[in-house]
Amino acid sequence: MDFFDVIRTQRAMRRLKPDPVSDEDLWTILDAAIHAPSGGNTQGWNFVVIRDRAVKEKIGAWYLEAWDRAYGPRRDAMLEDAQAGRMFRSADYLANHLADVPALILATLQNRTGFGADVSHGASIYPAVQNLMLAARALGLGTTLTTLHRLHEQDVRELLGIPADVDTMALIPVGHPRGRFGEPQRVPAEKVTYWDRWGERKTRGG
Amino acid sequence: MDFFDVIRTQRAMRRLKPDPVSDEDLWTILDAAIHAPSGGNTQGWNFVVIRDRAVKEKIGAWYLEAWDRAYGPRRDAMLEDAQAGRMFRSADYLANHLADVPALILATLQNRTGFGADVSHGASIYPAVQNLMLAARALGLGTTLTTLHRLHEQDVRELLGIPADVDTMALIPVGHPRGRFGEPQRVPAEKVTYWDRWGERKTRGG
Repeated sequence: MDFFDVIRTQRAMRRLKPDPVSDEDLWTILDAAIHAPSGGNTQGWNFVVIRDRAVKEKIGAWYLEAWDRAYGPRRDAMLEDAQAGRMFRSADYLANHLADVPALILATLQNRTGFGADVSHGASIYPAVQNLMLAARALGLGTTLTTLHRLHEQDVRELLGIPADVDTMALIPVGHPRGRFGEPQRVPAEKVTYWDRWGERKTRGG
Repeated sequence: MDFFDVIRTQRAMRRLKPDPVSDEDLWTILDAAIHAPSGGNTQGWNFVVIRDRAVKEKIGAWYLEAWDRAYGPRRDAMLEDAQAGRMFRSADYLANHLADVPALILATLQNRTGFGADVSHGASIYPAVQNLMLAARALGLGTTLTTLHRLHEQDVRELLGIPADVDTMALIPVGHPRGRFGEPQRVPAEKVTYWDRWGERKTRGG
């Protein structure tokens, strides 16, 4: 696929079929992930591919509890809004069907101390997560970046045997999508880009 | 360009020519950035494109000070190692030539409180940064993801007029590369991927 077609049509795909994803496709998206940059090329990442039904069910139960805790109180407000409502319903579907997703990929990162041990630490894992999701889209596979499992991070760590010096940074469901890829809803670049100083906008072609 | 060719050959390009980058190319990479996902599709991002020489010089001086502070003590050890030495020399070159780079793009993100106000907050900006860098590579432009300016974040915020509720998450130099794109040095996916449980490896094709 053409590079810009992939970029333009990657969107969160939360309704996935239970049909299996091939090992070959999984390796292809993992290869894409490890080509991403990381701070000082430290490559402190690991990827745990979860396909075991019993493991998915346990993680799915924690995820659903976290989803209800984090978004339950906003349910009615979100459902009233057309765009937020669509997103809410698909996220609610995912939270109730996580164990049916053929593969969950948990992206982890070695802890850091000192410089970079703050929000910018994510610079060493989310580029890889994005490569993985773009590659999945190029293969026709749906994904979405989730972090709700972090409300049960210690449980997830114990279940999978993850060491204490490793953080679980994203859980990415991967599967064949029920819906179709297409342009996501975004505020255009002109509205969020400033030139030389905060607040200074520029017209495209101007 | 083919999607997987871009993914495979994006690497940090730290030696950049001073030749200008066109507005059209900048809009193309910004368009790619805003197509990335963000938590709850909040799109709390902004991009400040810095081309003003005086602004670049101020940021360049802070960046060089931060570089010396963070990596100066490791200089000798890094130069002794072949691979780390190459990276060190190119990063040192960048730190000493930041004001000559035609465009610096500062990626910012609205602060968050509550769930997601930790390292996972980066999940709402680094996918966009990665899209931007991949798109640059597709156009033949070099970039690298840097965060060293954060050691002078308050200075940068004041210089550019950035509000206190906005974090500066990455500074991305953009320019025509002096060197050539190519496969980055990475540990293969087989070594960093586990299956169903931490530590469980699998052979490709096995």
